[in-house]
Amino acid sequence: MQQPSPSTARPLGPTPAEYEQRLLRVRQEMARRSMATLVVTDPANLYYLTGYNAWSFYTPQCLVVPAEGDPVLFAREMDAAGARSTTYLSGDLVEGYPERLVHRPDVHPFAWIAERIRERGLVDHAGGSTVGIEGDSQFFSARGYLALRSGLPDAALEDSRELVNWVRVVKSDYELAQMRIAGTIAQRAMEVALEAVAVGRRQCDAVADILAAQATGTTDHGGDYTAIVPMLPTGDGAGTPHLTWTDDVFRDGEATTIEIAGAYRRYHAPIARTIMLGDPPERLASTAAVARDGMAAVLAELRPGRTPQEIHALWDAVIRARGLSKASRIGYSIGVGYPPDWGERTISLRSGESFPLAAGMCFHVILGMWMDGWGYELSEPVVITADGAERLTNLTQDLTIRK
Amino acid sequence: MQQPSPSTARPLGPTPAEYEQRLLRVRQEMARRSMATLVVTDPANLYYLTGYNAWSFYTPQCLVVPAEGDPVLFAREMDAAGARSTTYLSGDLVEGYPERLVHRPDVHPFAWIAERIRERGLVDHAGGSTVGIEGDSQFFSARGYLALRSGLPDAALEDSRELVNWVRVVKSDYELAQMRIAGTIAQRAMEVALEAVAVGRRQCDAVADILAAQATGTTDHGGDYTAIVPMLPTGDGAGTPHLTWTDDVFRDGEATTIEIAGAYRRYHAPIARTIMLGDPPERLASTAAVARDGMAAVLAELRPGRTPQEIHALWDAVIRARGLSKASRIGYSIGVGYPPDWGERTISLRSGESFPLAAGMCFHVILGMWMDGWGYELSEPVVITADGAERLTNLTQDLTIRK
Repeated sequence: MQQPSPSTARPLGPTPAEYEQRLLRVRQEMARRSMATLVVTDPANLYYLTGYNAWSFYTPQCLVVPAEGDPVLFAREMDAAGARSTTYLSGDLVEGYPERLVHRPDVHPFAWIAERIRERGLVDHAGGSTVGIEGDSQFFSARGYLALRSGLPDAALEDSRELVNWVRVVKSDYELAQMRIAGTIAQRAMEVALEAVAVGRRQCDAVADILAAQATGTTDHGGDYTAIVPMLPTGDGAGTPHLTWTDDVFRDGEATTIEIAGAYRRYHAPIARTIMLGDPPERLASTAAVARDGMAAVLAELRPGRTPQEIHALWDAVIRARGLSKASRIGYSIGVGYPPDWGERTISLRSGESFPLAAGMCFHVILGMWMDGWGYELSEPVVITADGAERLTNLTQDLTIRK
Repeated sequence: MQQPSPSTARPLGPTPAEYEQRLLRVRQEMARRSMATLVVTDPANLYYLTGYNAWSFYTPQCLVVPAEGDPVLFAREMDAAGARSTTYLSGDLVEGYPERLVHRPDVHPFAWIAERIRERGLVDHAGGSTVGIEGDSQFFSARGYLALRSGLPDAALEDSRELVNWVRVVKSDYELAQMRIAGTIAQRAMEVALEAVAVGRRQCDAVADILAAQATGTTDHGGDYTAIVPMLPTGDGAGTPHLTWTDDVFRDGEATTIEIAGAYRRYHAPIARTIMLGDPPERLASTAAVARDGMAAVLAELRPGRTPQEIHALWDAVIRARGLSKASRIGYSIGVGYPPDWGERTISLRSGESFPLAAGMCFHVILGMWMDGWGYELSEPVVITADGAERLTNLTQDLTIRK
């Protein structure tokens, strides 16, 4: 692999040694599974392994990682130049497929890519070869999969089961620094959000403030785009978690749950809070108290060696003692994120998961209670250190009340 | 299908008759292809057919449309309530799959959905049946496809080749009204953008202004989130189209291409302009003149009966006469959009495409010239009417120069 030259290296980005280390860990896992080649399609994984970062993932692209030799990045022709100028990959390790293949029902870029994979010898046919694909990666479509399979008739395609995502779970010092910066942006954005929600104001105008705060970031660090837009279901809508905004106004007597993130160089620190306009009903106030106690119980024990199911059980005990229950997970691994999700699709904090937690992992601990016609959310982005959970923000964990 | 009740109908949304008409057109095409069932996964198609609109597409969801009888919407359990409250589908026509299926390598929601499809009799096994899938839909993963195929062993899965997307190509009067509103938001956002780019200002701060303008929209109509974030490659980066912003500052002597959209109720009007800080180099000024002439040639002939290849040839003649060439398409069909793309993945304005244009189609005509280390963009969102192209904005088409 070519070393980055001074003029093309991303300033303050990971060192060449860190990229080499990432690739090595991916290859170690490939070797363990006897995988000759891995076709990486998740934009977050592409960024993690090469630094390639552009809004080009709406057309097919992938990094082909052979067990030995240089990885090759394939992208649409008009995006290949951007890939060459923003990654450490030298010119011939980036290939652009022809424009005529874009958005056609009868031909697919992955057929072209498969041909180039064969021509470049990126897949070893000696004795049959296993080619890993990212089965549940966003932006790797069924048609793309079928085209790749047809184009590599001698290869056995095998789901990598989030191989690269699992390599990403434990963050390097460089990555933790990015996460902490993302936390400062999240903190600022949530402070703005809690000021922006007011009786009689349009939801879209509050969102305008939030989006501006997310992009502005801080004086030292500008914000990146977030993988999910601000979600702030209000009133009846707060009973369901993923509704986006409208141009209706906020009303007195209604609560709004706000879930947003701060993002820096694609690293995400998501955070959720709830604001009540007027006097909170008893049910909301008591749920807020339960969530705060549950969060304290979870954060106190989120440390290396604990398992997700143990953490979930602590939460479950707190809410069951108050007569509440919650079916969904209470958190998930975070780090690099691209739309439509800032989660890493690896570890979830829920019952039945026993993968031990380790220092350097990052989680979005989200205690969302979605009831019939109302809801409450409290969340924290955290890093697991040898000493336990380190919060990335320091906002109060209480229900915000504005009268 | 249940009629919308007054309390759940989206205000000013499509009428029940319009939803019925949309479904009818989908079923007519299904019948033509002997398709017993269609599994719709593209969020834009889900919204078009049901009104369902939430940031829930990062976990599997689909609308199963049988040739006869009610369509059924499948989503994650925590999202099913939102689907019931925002669509015309009655309670039992929305099913939520269990939380335990989310983000696991060993089980997949589409296995559960396949089982429910069989149990509900949504696929006709008499004499074998063809089940259409959306092969290149975003958010329908290879793993989801394989789970659906395994779960419907008696069905023949067939790529629908953007069946619903093609139904969407010609817009109704209701839809054209949304597009025109989106145009007013796009206009305002671009006016803000051209003011926001200034020497010494951080790119992220300009983006903050743009994002806020996109969400604020106009006094009458709040903006929705756009399917693509603002793209404003600057300086050397302007030679590649899809780079997003950084916290570097804009510099004197550099040009910035700005590509953004106005969005209203998921309908998108994208627009691109270029701004020069300082005196434009001759190559930029002359490219701007060529693009303006090319746009005039295209818009003059964009009318019912013309074909995409004819339109492309007009453009090509203009730029070839000036010694320029462009490999990529000069436009594509637009309408409802979800991340990561505001295009409909149907008609592209390029050579080799002969599907005749018709009144009610909408296009983003984008003349992007990406050179080695610099670039120029000029685009217009337009509606094709019986009389020709109607622009959705009325901004000047010249290069903006700020000294």
